[in-house]
Amino acid sequence: MTRAGDDAPIHGRADAGEAISREAISRDTVARAADALDALRAKRPRVHCITNTVAQTYTANLLLAAGAVPSMTIAPDEIAAFVAGADALVVNIGTLDEPRRTAIGIAIDAATEAGIPWVLDPVFVDRSPGRATFGKALLAMRPTVLRLNPAEFAVLSGLPAEADHLPGFARENQAVVALTGETDLVADAARRAALANGHRWMARITAMGCAGAALVAAFAAVDEDPWHATIAALVALGVAAERAAVVSSGPGTLAVRLLDTLFDLDRKDLLEQAKVS
Amino acid sequence: MTRAGDDAPIHGRADAGEAISREAISRDTVARAADALDALRAKRPRVHCITNTVAQTYTANLLLAAGAVPSMTIAPDEIAAFVAGADALVVNIGTLDEPRRTAIGIAIDAATEAGIPWVLDPVFVDRSPGRATFGKALLAMRPTVLRLNPAEFAVLSGLPAEADHLPGFARENQAVVALTGETDLVADAARRAALANGHRWMARITAMGCAGAALVAAFAAVDEDPWHATIAALVALGVAAERAAVVSSGPGTLAVRLLDTLFDLDRKDLLEQAKVS
Amino acid sequence: MTRAGDDAPIHGRADAGEAISREAISRDTVARAADALDALRAKRPRVHCITNTVAQTYTANLLLAAGAVPSMTIAPDEIAAFVAGADALVVNIGTLDEPRRTAIGIAIDAATEAGIPWVLDPVFVDRSPGRATFGKALLAMRPTVLRLNPAEFAVLSGLPAEADHLPGFARENQAVVALTGETDLVADAARRAALANGHRWMARITAMGCAGAALVAAFAAVDEDPWHATIAALVALGVAAERAAVVSSGPGTLAVRLLDTLFDLDRKDLLEQAKVS
Repeated sequence: MTRAGDDAPIHGRADAGEAISREAISRDTVARAADALDALRAKRPRVHCITNTVAQTYTANLLLAAGAVPSMTIAPDEIAAFVAGADALVVNIGTLDEPRRTAIGIAIDAATEAGIPWVLDPVFVDRSPGRATFGKALLAMRPTVLRLNPAEFAVLSGLPAEADHLPGFARENQAVVALTGETDLVADAARRAALANGHRWMARITAMGCAGAALVAAFAAVDEDPWHATIAALVALGVAAERAAVVSSGPGTLAVRLLDTLFDLDRKDLLEQAKVS
Repeated sequence: MTRAGDDAPIHGRADAGEAISREAISRDTVARAADALDALRAKRPRVHCITNTVAQTYTANLLLAAGAVPSMTIAPDEIAAFVAGADALVVNIGTLDEPRRTAIGIAIDAATEAGIPWVLDPVFVDRSPGRATFGKALLAMRPTVLRLNPAEFAVLSGLPAEADHLPGFARENQAVVALTGETDLVADAARRAALANGHRWMARITAMGCAGAALVAAFAAVDEDPWHATIAALVALGVAAERAAVVSSGPGTLAVRLLDTLFDLDRKDLLEQAKVS
Repeated sequence: MTRAGDDAPIHGRADAGEAISREAISRDTVARAADALDALRAKRPRVHCITNTVAQTYTANLLLAAGAVPSMTIAPDEIAAFVAGADALVVNIGTLDEPRRTAIGIAIDAATEAGIPWVLDPVFVDRSPGRATFGKALLAMRPTVLRLNPAEFAVLSGLPAEADHLPGFARENQAVVALTGETDLVADAARRAALANGHRWMARITAMGCAGAALVAAFAAVDEDPWHATIAALVALGVAAERAAVVSSGPGTLAVRLLDTLFDLDRKDLLEQAKVS
């Protein structure tokens, strides 16, 4: 996410031919995101969320507003049944305690067995050695999508959080990597995109990143190409935030209004407002 | 809860005499709901809530807005003291983990001993076999009121979620049964009512049902007839939602504004806007 | 916190000279609070919060709106690392369970070792004997600031919650004591102040007190005199609430708008609106 109106491309210089080709790719990508939004509303996928207690309520409300159906249990004797009945899983390691660790292992096994996509959000792996170790172990379990911020990227990859390091890291982990910040970068082994929607107040709302990761999971349930699904989710969130900011007076109202604008968002909004390059 | 303005009676054909009698019953029921609202504001009952972590904050805010005083601990060594000092208990089995299971047993024993009403909200019993078993065990402990949705009703009763099956199920369990959906149905062994207030955005707000169950507990603390108390709570919530929807632009603002309108709600609002049949 | 516009001094009669001197002290105190607000925005202190699950989300959003950076884990193997990397700690004993008890002990030790301030919020010590015992044990571990309401003060001090009993209790515990209510009283062994900002709807918003205690911790990270830091935090919260109330229609919107007004608050707002005596 970036400041609204702050369009910061990550690519270097490009000649005119390349620019035109990129514009066409961008148009196709946004059209596909619009299709995914329609599919999300039609299919109403179930998303099981293992997320920190701080983020649970907003994550559930964001998923409901988008059209998905959240569940959140971490009880060891029932989480496998919940995941098996879901269309996608998100694993966020915030407020990580022993029951959550156990639940995460069971849930990832169940997701892998069911063949559903799962998204890893390695919150605060830069803050404690134990969490870094756990984050790396989860990465080795092959998440479909990895969403993280620059400090978390640096810890997990051992590399500076620069655009050029993303595709290699994505290839190595066979995952889509979404590096969120002022501009969101989304890469797999072969493709990359920069997303410039969003609003600076989003950084002042707790759980916005966690809820965004859950939205990625919801879109991954309806678009089988996780690179496209990730772009669709982050663009939808960013455009909804920009539309909400127009009627907000700070981060408090933005968080609330964003649920309204996401609920109302349609393909036309995405086609007109998406900033993908 | 139902769509605003969408008045869907559950009863079959009725002749004119029956219709008049029903209208009188409905008027009396709404007047009693208005009395209960006044009593709630005067008495400010304490409601102990064992509820899932996703629903805790909104449940607490809804109770506070209505005039009740929430508490939420699940620690085994102190929950009995909290329940003994409360005027009602609500047991919601969402995000069910081991500490919650233990807490629920202690809390129900304490409520039974203290003679205070308790409400059971068997969230997601349709999603895992273990939860269904636990839900049935709790039902056998004789909740004063059982609030559930059609999928949960089907699992606990073994019957389709139809209005005609409610009184028998209520009789068998010696409980008031509140089946919430587009129209809320409230039945005990001898009486039933259909409540048509509410707004369709409520289904897109997490914890709305859980918070509603807590509100039922709050009203059960001030009206000793749990059938009337349940109706009063659901009508108050539905009318507050309709009033909030007028100044809302989606589910995000509705959740917030509903706290304001519930806080401001008075008996006149209920008498004018309640749709009870 | 008190009703907006309801300026209730706690001191008794005073002659004119005393009144003038007090006014000067009050002016200096408010100017220092304004400096602390600027420092908070510049330094963006990290505040580790052990708080109840009901309060986590609002506490995080309040800290973010003010300019601080919250973290909330209670996992025993990583909480020491989080606290060591933080600038202040808040310990709230709501929804107290075994993992929280363990986490609290580790966190206080880590804070003491790191020499960072910590704030104790002994929620509901008046509701269960076990919690009262635990609250007293924590008080013996020398919190920098103790924030509590009159019922909690009575249990911990064995004295009625009157202004005259605060300095002695503060001296005995070598802590700043903030007794919150219609008027907030802030005392250490030698000084005391009464704060009359705020709005009556704040009492109808869950976690407002808990979030306020976290804000005290944030200010204690940027003003080394905890008496001044506590005043600064409570005045900032109270003024933000008054500004929010102007554009709110009840407790639901107040909670949201307060995040906006706190985010926007500047020193001029404090200098003009603070009611400190």
